[in-house]
Amino acid sequence: MPDDLDRLLTDAKRASRELGVAPAERRHAAITAIADAIERAGDAILAANAEDLERGRAGGLASGLLDRLLLDEGRIAALAAAARQLAALPDPIGEVLRERTLPNGLELTEVRVPFGVIGVIYEARPNVTVDLACIALGSGNAVVLRGGSAAERTNAVLVATMQDAIEASGLPRAAVQTIDRFGRDGAGRLMRARGLVDLLVPRGSAALIERVVTESTVPVIETGAGVVHAFVDRAASLPMALEILLNAKTQRTSVCNSLETVLVHRDIADTAVPAIADAMREAGVTIHADTPLPGVDAPEPLGEQGWSTEHLSMDVAIGVVDDVRAAIEHVNAFGTHHTDTIITDDADAADRFLAEVDSAVVMHNASTRFTDGGEFGFGAEVGISTQKAHARGPMGLPELTSTKWIVRGTGQVRA
Amino acid sequence: MPDDLDRLLTDAKRASRELGVAPAERRHAAITAIADAIERAGDAILAANAEDLERGRAGGLASGLLDRLLLDEGRIAALAAAARQLAALPDPIGEVLRERTLPNGLELTEVRVPFGVIGVIYEARPNVTVDLACIALGSGNAVVLRGGSAAERTNAVLVATMQDAIEASGLPRAAVQTIDRFGRDGAGRLMRARGLVDLLVPRGSAALIERVVTESTVPVIETGAGVVHAFVDRAASLPMALEILLNAKTQRTSVCNSLETVLVHRDIADTAVPAIADAMREAGVTIHADTPLPGVDAPEPLGEQGWSTEHLSMDVAIGVVDDVRAAIEHVNAFGTHHTDTIITDDADAADRFLAEVDSAVVMHNASTRFTDGGEFGFGAEVGISTQKAHARGPMGLPELTSTKWIVRGTGQVRA
Repeated sequence: MPDDLDRLLTDAKRASRELGVAPAERRHAAITAIADAIERAGDAILAANAEDLERGRAGGLASGLLDRLLLDEGRIAALAAAARQLAALPDPIGEVLRERTLPNGLELTEVRVPFGVIGVIYEARPNVTVDLACIALGSGNAVVLRGGSAAERTNAVLVATMQDAIEASGLPRAAVQTIDRFGRDGAGRLMRARGLVDLLVPRGSAALIERVVTESTVPVIETGAGVVHAFVDRAASLPMALEILLNAKTQRTSVCNSLETVLVHRDIADTAVPAIADAMREAGVTIHADTPLPGVDAPEPLGEQGWSTEHLSMDVAIGVVDDVRAAIEHVNAFGTHHTDTIITDDADAADRFLAEVDSAVVMHNASTRFTDGGEFGFGAEVGISTQKAHARGPMGLPELTSTKWIVRGTGQVRA
Repeated sequence: MPDDLDRLLTDAKRASRELGVAPAERRHAAITAIADAIERAGDAILAANAEDLERGRAGGLASGLLDRLLLDEGRIAALAAAARQLAALPDPIGEVLRERTLPNGLELTEVRVPFGVIGVIYEARPNVTVDLACIALGSGNAVVLRGGSAAERTNAVLVATMQDAIEASGLPRAAVQTIDRFGRDGAGRLMRARGLVDLLVPRGSAALIERVVTESTVPVIETGAGVVHAFVDRAASLPMALEILLNAKTQRTSVCNSLETVLVHRDIADTAVPAIADAMREAGVTIHADTPLPGVDAPEPLGEQGWSTEHLSMDVAIGVVDDVRAAIEHVNAFGTHHTDTIITDDADAADRFLAEVDSAVVMHNASTRFTDGGEFGFGAEVGISTQKAHARGPMGLPELTSTKWIVRGTGQVRA
């Protein structure tokens, strides 16, 4: 006899079949209804969130996690606004990707279709709960959410509110479900629900992602870890470099697209390194290095993972490299294939860096903080894929779709 | 200290960096050189193949496997011809998939890039060895092959021949490597080579695919198993139905796109089922059913997996369903999401079947045997994906690519 979780996943699969043939207008109407409902339910959401925060404080949750857990009126309004933006984006479903007619007259059409059921395992971020539900509806998928115990009460109210709105729009409640009540066991079963879960996305700590990648037997998108580099080429404008480096490092430190390592071309190291180090220290950033740096007193050693350390704090590693080739090799060897930028006025050096750095997003003269679904115009994001299969970089609506070949014939058989 | 297999995988990664920036002309020249070299080395290849066949016969290999293992002059010529066809296909690398300019002036471009290193685990089919090497070169990837012990000598000669041709074309030998000599341990380590293997494709038996999906920590494409259906609607042309059913079932039985189950609309069952059963039996096909069928004496019971049995032999299951909706439910419940076809003159029934059957390839009035990279015009195929992530259906050159976002700025920072 199926237990509750089996039934929940089967309900999700059934709901996904309905969503897969529902017109875009109805799915968009459901997203708009979610935006309205969340604004209307603001008091209940904030009350549940206060309980989670209280429990978190009592349990000694770190301040960074408490901040991610916190909802307030402004954040609720921002969630509703993001949902409305998603509802205004073009529908990816049914888009024709390739068409061809074979010599025997068979007509082949490759079209975008929803995945079916998307699972997401994430940690302590209730805003993600709403983003994910709306992205899933926007791409015709059902979603099963495991949001982590710290946000359990907030997520329960958010999901119930969204389910009411979805049902009122004529779509199945099971389009959006939470499995928080099944605890860690629920997450493990989600990872092995072959045939019911079509794609699983982990969002959160490196340990969480590692566990999901290792244990899952359903297809997974690896997201997140960002050992992000900036290479200051010898042909860089130093003022531009300083502005980009400070923005990439300090504008928000706890996120995956923030800067962790600055590499400086040896030819300009004597002037550029002291200028960068001074500007970083003035902004409150601690400098790390593995060798003495020109004009930098007593840098700290590299982090525990050496050049692959992801600080996510006001810390930066600085290194000197011989040329753009050495910079590329360093980035490919020690980075996480997330986002890396070159600062230079030399078009050839830029082209080489953009071509040879093996990362999801490669930039020229821009801050790495722009790697973000919202910034890219995707409305919101499921996460940032750092693997190469299926999707790479910020994942929005098209990244939550699969494809299908439709073959129309008049009785053709194979010779 | 790295052992041989670590070094082999590291060499593959390094070779993939060279291939990733090699111009298409050079990669196409290498494929053409492979075609020439394989034709020239025909005698050595056939001698090695004779040894494998001898060992296979002595070891009691089934006749179907022996046939898959066999190379002869005709098959070698066909391999060379397929390679030359691949070399003539458009290069997918560098193709621009999306472009946009953000309000702040940042220019975003999404381009196709190679994966890097593709691993393939397959069984006893030396022709696949050449197809895979050429598809990998055509898409700018290095490939690491585990072809199974039955074909080990043939594969060793094929790989050495191809490596010589690749090197003579100015590309690295390590672009194509075999790990057959590492045995089962090699396959297991390929599955867990995170950071070195970017995509792993198993091709072969259900047991092999199950092992790879379960044990791998690198991204996997699930391929293969085909519980393939044909639904004969009440508005079907019976002569067309018979021709398609016989072709799909009997043209080649051992392949994944061959027919396993015929579903017949109840309204025409009294005439259609006896006609189908007679034609099948006349062609030497055994009929299976789970209830009495009109006009069919003593059908065999369904296979061990019931309606989900993949016979891959001259056996077919026949069932009667109430309508197109019931047919769709049956296919989605018992199929493997590979290929399913509807035979009907009713456009509405066809559209519904094509939209709601959740399979990689859905067909109307055509034989399921057309699901094939060669038939689709892909030149050759890596396999047929039955999962929804990354690629679905026959996998050719574009399916062996990833993407990368290139962001060009003039000093933009995030506010």
